Amino acid sequence: LTKRLTISVDAMGGDDAPEMVVAGMELARQRLPHVDFLLFGDREKVEPLLASYPSLQKRCEFRHTDEMVLNEDKVAVALRNKRQSSMRLAINAVKDGEAAGVVSAGNTGALMAMAKFVLKTLPGIERPAIATVLPTISGQTVMLDLGANVDCDGDNLVQFAIMGEVFATNVLGLEKPRIGILNIGEEELKGNEAVQQASTMLQEIDLPIHFHGFVEGDGIGAGTVDVVVTDGFTGNVALKTAEGTAKMLGHFLKEALTGTLLGKLGALIAGPALNAFKERVDPRRYNGAMFLGLNGICVKSHGGTDALGFANAIGVAAELVSRGINEGIKRDMEKFVHNPHEEQAAEA
Amino acid sequence: LTKRLTISVDAMGGDDAPEMVVAGMELARQRLPHVDFLLFGDREKVEPLLASYPSLQKRCEFRHTDEMVLNEDKVAVALRNKRQSSMRLAINAVKDGEAAGVVSAGNTGALMAMAKFVLKTLPGIERPAIATVLPTISGQTVMLDLGANVDCDGDNLVQFAIMGEVFATNVLGLEKPRIGILNIGEEELKGNEAVQQASTMLQEIDLPIHFHGFVEGDGIGAGTVDVVVTDGFTGNVALKTAEGTAKMLGHFLKEALTGTLLGKLGALIAGPALNAFKERVDPRRYNGAMFLGLNGICVKSHGGTDALGFANAIGVAAELVSRGINEGIKRDMEKFVHNPHEEQAAEA
Repeated sequence: LTKRLTISVDAMGGDDAPEMVVAGMELARQRLPHVDFLLFGDREKVEPLLASYPSLQKRCEFRHTDEMVLNEDKVAVALRNKRQSSMRLAINAVKDGEAAGVVSAGNTGALMAMAKFVLKTLPGIERPAIATVLPTISGQTVMLDLGANVDCDGDNLVQFAIMGEVFATNVLGLEKPRIGILNIGEEELKGNEAVQQASTMLQEIDLPIHFHGFVEGDGIGAGTVDVVVTDGFTGNVALKTAEGTAKMLGHFLKEALTGTLLGKLGALIAGPALNAFKERVDPRRYNGAMFLGLNGICVKSHGGTDALGFANAIGVAAELVSRGINEGIKRDMEKFVHNPHEEQAAEA
Repeated sequence: LTKRLTISVDAMGGDDAPEMVVAGMELARQRLPHVDFLLFGDREKVEPLLASYPSLQKRCEFRHTDEMVLNEDKVAVALRNKRQSSMRLAINAVKDGEAAGVVSAGNTGALMAMAKFVLKTLPGIERPAIATVLPTISGQTVMLDLGANVDCDGDNLVQFAIMGEVFATNVLGLEKPRIGILNIGEEELKGNEAVQQASTMLQEIDLPIHFHGFVEGDGIGAGTVDVVVTDGFTGNVALKTAEGTAKMLGHFLKEALTGTLLGKLGALIAGPALNAFKERVDPRRYNGAMFLGLNGICVKSHGGTDALGFANAIGVAAELVSRGINEGIKRDMEKFVHNPHEEQAAEA
């Protein structure tokens, strides 16, 4: 029996909010019988939607606010001026212990800034990272950071590696996940200073981590490692490049199969197989970017997703709570005695 | 009538060299009647291969050397100790005016270092960049740098933008190519210092350049711009991530279509359509990474390519020569009066 838990939800974030959000919660309710909801948003818009899902309503507490964070809001402005927004109140609920985790499909920068400000980082973690699970030829891999930190040093990357390792162990259930640092070659001497430093530290680290070494961009899809560690600039570009490539290839395939009569006929016959293919790479399946390293669970849904995608993001948050990701990170960070700053200072 | 020109070729670089190289030259000979060849390599291995292509032999001068650069050679060692290697002699031929361009499928780092040392950079270009043409939904785009420069500042990125613009104009034949800087968001304030500086400079630049602004990773495949400018670390990761994603999706598609009887039947009927799709995204079509910014044409073929891919790389080199890419870069760099270093010094 899974322990009951509450997820707080920002009703107003996302392109098709709040309709998409409430419909996604209904899907999540059916899938996750152990989850209750705490929902923040505009009464006039949200209550009529909730009314159409009586079973959801029974497991959902709704709280009104007419303030909301917009996509075009500057991060600093949202942080300072939108303290009564649905996003901020949903985060506060985690801080106050009313919810075990929060999900929003709103402005990523504002969500990260608010979550960091309200929840703070876990002991030993300087900066939280955005992580997601990606499909690979041999299964799946977790990649981080995906955009929270434009510039990273070796320490940051090592902390990302530890968080990724805990995720792969606790949530993906891998026994000895292989950790790789994204680089432009697999040779030891390649890359910038940050990846060089992180690689040295991970080789010497006092934790039972399986450090594979460097991995190149094509190693992500190949499933060369279970955890891909990178700075937020490179990670964001890599993730979006993969998405763009998938979209382009899907477009080309569709053009080819609809361009000729035989193509159309073949595609019709192979329909179920092609659908299985589409389903396997459906981006909604991988929706839910996790903010790791915060003192509370926070998941960002893609802003353009639909109810199915949003339900998946809720599932991710519930999973992170149930699997005790933060307890795992805390435990590993305590064991991680190595303090490179002190060592470097001593050497200098 | 296209002017005759000579391409020098390193016979010994590449996984399947020299067989793949000579077979690729034979294909290129058929396609490019205006191209002659100057070939460097080991007599014992190369001469028997050449003997089987009499028409190629007539247009190819062969020169023996028994030294060659290996894939595992360190760049500095290759540069210092392999001055009689097939790679080095092929580059020297460009410097000496015997060839208009050089093609090698060997060690990328060594090729770049040797080419830079022997040919030097064009006036105003601090660092050469590696560029390639990629397919997009709406056509094609050129991306640079792909790994020559791990750390780049704003000046470097601006120089890459100018080189990319000249390439897109002269070689792709675009009238007003759209230039984009790869970033983690399209908003003006996003990204690291280098992309911020470059963006400011490109907005103020005294050249008729169409600067689109920032572009995200998914803009590459979408064809949002004609030139994607980035540092060598990010560019290399993005390129290889795209390759890895394509490989993964191809694998999934094949699995889906061979996994069921209807899938197999459909794929059989849609065979020609699926082949057209495969051909459109065939990486060999896009083989030939261009080293832009050098005082001479140098093209790197993928090491693992086959004869078809190598022939394409030769085609790229011949095209760069015929279209006068370097004359264009020189012309634009002369017009580019803006010198940010001096301005910054004056401000300080």
